[in-house]
Amino acid sequence: MQLGMVGLGRMGNYMVQRLMRGGHECVVYDARPESVAELVGLGADGSGSLEEFVSKLARPRAVWLMLPAAITDKVIASIVPLLHDGDILIDGGNSYYHDDIRRGAELITKGIHYVDVGTSGGVFGLERGYCLMIGGEKGIVQHLSPIFATLAPGNGTAEASPNRTPEAAALSTAEQGFLHCGPHGAGHFVKMVHNGIEYGLMAAYAEGLNILKHANVGALTHEADAETAPLSHPEYYQYDFNLPEISEVWRRGSVITSWLLDLTADALHKDPVLTQYAGRVSDSGEGRWTIMAAIDESVPTPVLSAALHGRFSSRDQDEFANKVLSAMRAGFGGHAEKPHK
Amino acid sequence: MQLGMVGLGRMGNYMVQRLMRGGHECVVYDARPESVAELVGLGADGSGSLEEFVSKLARPRAVWLMLPAAITDKVIASIVPLLHDGDILIDGGNSYYHDDIRRGAELITKGIHYVDVGTSGGVFGLERGYCLMIGGEKGIVQHLSPIFATLAPGNGTAEASPNRTPEAAALSTAEQGFLHCGPHGAGHFVKMVHNGIEYGLMAAYAEGLNILKHANVGALTHEADAETAPLSHPEYYQYDFNLPEISEVWRRGSVITSWLLDLTADALHKDPVLTQYAGRVSDSGEGRWTIMAAIDESVPTPVLSAALHGRFSSRDQDEFANKVLSAMRAGFGGHAEKPHK
Amino acid sequence: MQLGMVGLGRMGNYMVQRLMRGGHECVVYDARPESVAELVGLGADGSGSLEEFVSKLARPRAVWLMLPAAITDKVIASIVPLLHDGDILIDGGNSYYHDDIRRGAELITKGIHYVDVGTSGGVFGLERGYCLMIGGEKGIVQHLSPIFATLAPGNGTAEASPNRTPEAAALSTAEQGFLHCGPHGAGHFVKMVHNGIEYGLMAAYAEGLNILKHANVGALTHEADAETAPLSHPEYYQYDFNLPEISEVWRRGSVITSWLLDLTADALHKDPVLTQYAGRVSDSGEGRWTIMAAIDESVPTPVLSAALHGRFSSRDQDEFANKVLSAMRAGFGGHAEKPHK
Amino acid sequence: MQLGMVGLGRMGNYMVQRLMRGGHECVVYDARPESVAELVGLGADGSGSLEEFVSKLARPRAVWLMLPAAITDKVIASIVPLLHDGDILIDGGNSYYHDDIRRGAELITKGIHYVDVGTSGGVFGLERGYCLMIGGEKGIVQHLSPIFATLAPGNGTAEASPNRTPEAAALSTAEQGFLHCGPHGAGHFVKMVHNGIEYGLMAAYAEGLNILKHANVGALTHEADAETAPLSHPEYYQYDFNLPEISEVWRRGSVITSWLLDLTADALHKDPVLTQYAGRVSDSGEGRWTIMAAIDESVPTPVLSAALHGRFSSRDQDEFANKVLSAMRAGFGGHAEKPHK
Repeated sequence: MQLGMVGLGRMGNYMVQRLMRGGHECVVYDARPESVAELVGLGADGSGSLEEFVSKLARPRAVWLMLPAAITDKVIASIVPLLHDGDILIDGGNSYYHDDIRRGAELITKGIHYVDVGTSGGVFGLERGYCLMIGGEKGIVQHLSPIFATLAPGNGTAEASPNRTPEAAALSTAEQGFLHCGPHGAGHFVKMVHNGIEYGLMAAYAEGLNILKHANVGALTHEADAETAPLSHPEYYQYDFNLPEISEVWRRGSVITSWLLDLTADALHKDPVLTQYAGRVSDSGEGRWTIMAAIDESVPTPVLSAALHGRFSSRDQDEFANKVLSAMRAGFGGHAEKPHK
Repeated sequence: MQLGMVGLGRMGNYMVQRLMRGGHECVVYDARPESVAELVGLGADGSGSLEEFVSKLARPRAVWLMLPAAITDKVIASIVPLLHDGDILIDGGNSYYHDDIRRGAELITKGIHYVDVGTSGGVFGLERGYCLMIGGEKGIVQHLSPIFATLAPGNGTAEASPNRTPEAAALSTAEQGFLHCGPHGAGHFVKMVHNGIEYGLMAAYAEGLNILKHANVGALTHEADAETAPLSHPEYYQYDFNLPEISEVWRRGSVITSWLLDLTADALHKDPVLTQYAGRVSDSGEGRWTIMAAIDESVPTPVLSAALHGRFSSRDQDEFANKVLSAMRAGFGGHAEKPHK
Repeated sequence: MQLGMVGLGRMGNYMVQRLMRGGHECVVYDARPESVAELVGLGADGSGSLEEFVSKLARPRAVWLMLPAAITDKVIASIVPLLHDGDILIDGGNSYYHDDIRRGAELITKGIHYVDVGTSGGVFGLERGYCLMIGGEKGIVQHLSPIFATLAPGNGTAEASPNRTPEAAALSTAEQGFLHCGPHGAGHFVKMVHNGIEYGLMAAYAEGLNILKHANVGALTHEADAETAPLSHPEYYQYDFNLPEISEVWRRGSVITSWLLDLTADALHKDPVLTQYAGRVSDSGEGRWTIMAAIDESVPTPVLSAALHGRFSSRDQDEFANKVLSAMRAGFGGHAEKPHK
Repeated sequence: MQLGMVGLGRMGNYMVQRLMRGGHECVVYDARPESVAELVGLGADGSGSLEEFVSKLARPRAVWLMLPAAITDKVIASIVPLLHDGDILIDGGNSYYHDDIRRGAELITKGIHYVDVGTSGGVFGLERGYCLMIGGEKGIVQHLSPIFATLAPGNGTAEASPNRTPEAAALSTAEQGFLHCGPHGAGHFVKMVHNGIEYGLMAAYAEGLNILKHANVGALTHEADAETAPLSHPEYYQYDFNLPEISEVWRRGSVITSWLLDLTADALHKDPVLTQYAGRVSDSGEGRWTIMAAIDESVPTPVLSAALHGRFSSRDQDEFANKVLSAMRAGFGGHAEKPHK
């Protein structure tokens, strides 16, 4: 079927490619003409303005927005006046689900159907397919299912869970890699929690590998003073572990096999000490929103919270707090800070 | 080759079965005769005492212990007098790596070689193979490699990481699913951290699913009082999510695919509300030791720690602390505890 | 000066008493006539309706609201039509500072000045005085300073910090126990963070005392099985500590002396095992808002977050997450849950 | 009475001064002659060697060691051969209580009584007195009580808890500021937990103040990109808080008053931005041991743990873990790290 795509960054670009490979007709627009041109070269129908873009779409139009969350509302405001009753606006970016609920309610008063799609898969989605978590009206989501089916990994990419009943399977498209999760916002809610989980998983691997990396600390020299806890048993920390090979072996038969481990192993093979990274870890919204939702719900999330706060600390946002700690220690104990190692 | 197995619980039993399938000759012993008899029925050479067990093994003997960590030392003390110079003792259980270092040093004075093997794979290992993390002398580990190769998943169960160099691959057996990680204790150290990571991963999924489960909290009625934070926007928490289907869709193309997610999805298909579980989560040593090692190394592990402490709390070990909190609140604010919902 | 008080729960009641002792004239109102009557008996000017209440106040009126956060907006909506240009509305409850910013902006369009006052001190405030954190227009806050000065503990209740400069002292009323912190919402923002800190402090004491309480765990019998980490050195956990006396001694000369410790010691003297508490710990808004503000600011708060999530867990909100963990353990390891001790 | 002090750093020096003010006779020794000379100038009886030191003490000797934990055992080994049956060795430093248990058992075989004293109070102890937590034999502790009574703050420095019974008071010296907590190791165990609590309290204040410090983040400019969560409501973060005055006002009547807050307020008055500190926070053993004890006991300490791990992170011990996170993000999302602000 025909789909219009607005926002041709890496994610939008790859999704258009995957859709065209699946036989769909794609009309594309981006504020950067070169992004449009690249996809036109691959068979897409390009447009130089939102007006032209909309005019090329047959009604009821299906417009997919793939934009940074910060500008989605601005683009919606520009495009909505160009749309008509029955058209469909899909937000496949990382919007806050609160915005979906608001937009869904506003747009329906204009006859426009809104669908929120949480999209996971990253830069590998072009080949691997995207996991799609969808919120919106049931009929509209069904109408778009050919699009979702092409973007998703598809049947056969994983075996169904042994205990999944035929009845459940008959009612759901989960096995194809996309799922209608509920009304407006449900798609981004589920994607938000997916990312919150992702933060926790990533931190678990990172902390564990960091323990392995420091397992030789007993072989390093240490001074004895009143400021530092002496390592009472250096003989227990004499290991020089090969992190690339350890992560490689964990990929086979262990309890902690995962796609994130695959990526980690590969990064460590490329460079076991990860020289190119400074360790300043960004966070792009969903991790925060996950914790806020948990707090609203009174659901304890100590692990996911610790993962989020660790990212803040990685960007030195704990600096003043740590200065306060040093000032207190100086205050009650006369402890001077130790110089940088 | 020939291997003796002591300890025929589920893990030991399955490993013997996998070894026999792979053409190895297994002599087995367990304090429970029925456990011996079961494997004899499948082709193993059974024994009614440790003495008989040892006598059936050709020198240099290879004896694999698959026992609860709490009794391993006792069994070692019983079997060592029966062994001879050049024999090999393998601990495949969940020993603390400190014990491996001690045992390795003690046993070598008697000419006995000690090998510690961290074994991951659980009850699925029989079919899926076991991920083996190995510590000990290089030559001894190489001597045992036919055994490890059969227990491990084997080549082809996962593609090698794209950036893994041929040089790395030539030097390591990681691609077959087993790895010599370093000297005595290295195998259990790596397994310990593996389990520490596992705790973090598990908690990440569990917390995320718990957020989804409570996403309908806005639809439940709440009273307004000074003791409880009002849910200011109930309209954001009106979702009834289908957890089995959400975990099923995440298994395809998402960033958080993993074997643990596969297991979780299947458990949720079996029973979406997990009625049979009380939520009292055991922990069996490695998670604790992981955190202790991290502390010795000064490596921050806020996420793995939170996962461990969450397990303690699940068993009501926070009860007195919580009473102290309620007593304080009563003290400064006259707050009475709210009755159980 | 004259002050009107709406909301005569324990907090409002005590504040009126303290104000009257300080020579102020108090007009009071509460939906419960008996609450009004009690204060009339102590010298307050009572009223049977909001209309009567407002009519008794001289312009510019100063109306202090001391209400549960959940109903403050409703009462404001009722009282505002009765007020006039130049009147002052003070919210001394635990409002979310977002609401202060909104109310301040709305009310000023009607000529009404809004002041938000974060109030700490609890049930001891009547004798000890209240620590007041104030947001609003500078002139208005100054106009109300006689009220604040009476409610606050006053000069001399603590020595000024040695390094506080005379210049700083000249510009601020902090030494009297009240402080104009900034524009609308500043008072409740500072109070919110105060409470966030309080959660962390309380949890620190509670966790520490819990460690002392379990210091006899080595003297209790334990079974050895594969499900439970054996306590490798029971000889280190043979202490029967006297918690009331330990908290009593800590109150003298230690680094951790505090008012919360005073309260804790007293509660433990009353009942060392705190039988009357179930350990279900409420949280009343500020702790949550503190974490949400921290997340908005990208400020890491791992400790305060852990304290908040611990309260959620104390109310069994982690139940489903823990069931998921048990289900996973059953899945990969065939681990059965251990029965309740 | 007479006391010998070995180790004349700031703590040992001040304790000797306080004891001499209280009328006790002090024999002193330190490897640095200038430290001995300083106290001789104040009235102490100095010695140039351990032999001379011991010879000056009347039997049964009372020898107090005030040394860095890392060298205490070495000094004990040197001094024990010089002591006689019935002499008393007191460790007032920050020893691990495991060492106390071992030492107590070893020394009693030589007729020497060992006492472990956890000492809190820091550099203020000279004037404020030291809170003393004591482990050892009951009779020996009673014999030393004149020393403890002088070092401790003494009666009257804090009112007894209202609910403390006369019976409890009659049995305990807690009100004077010292307490016999139990057998060998009990003193340092209680001191260890005291310090663990201290870490949590300090972090609670530090995190809260950090939130206040960043409350102006909405007034700073931010770029919109897919890597950073947009601050959706900058209008809520426009506050420029005066941290010295806020901590000053909290010292009066608030729930969070404490000695640590007093120190913090003073440090902020000295320099509101704490320029002289880098924020690299040391930890000196007890915090770590507290968490290890909690883990051994299965007692959840999420807050105290987070405080400890925060200190590790403040010293960049999370660097490799954070690089792993950035490498994962690059792997699945093509996310490049954002440059340093």
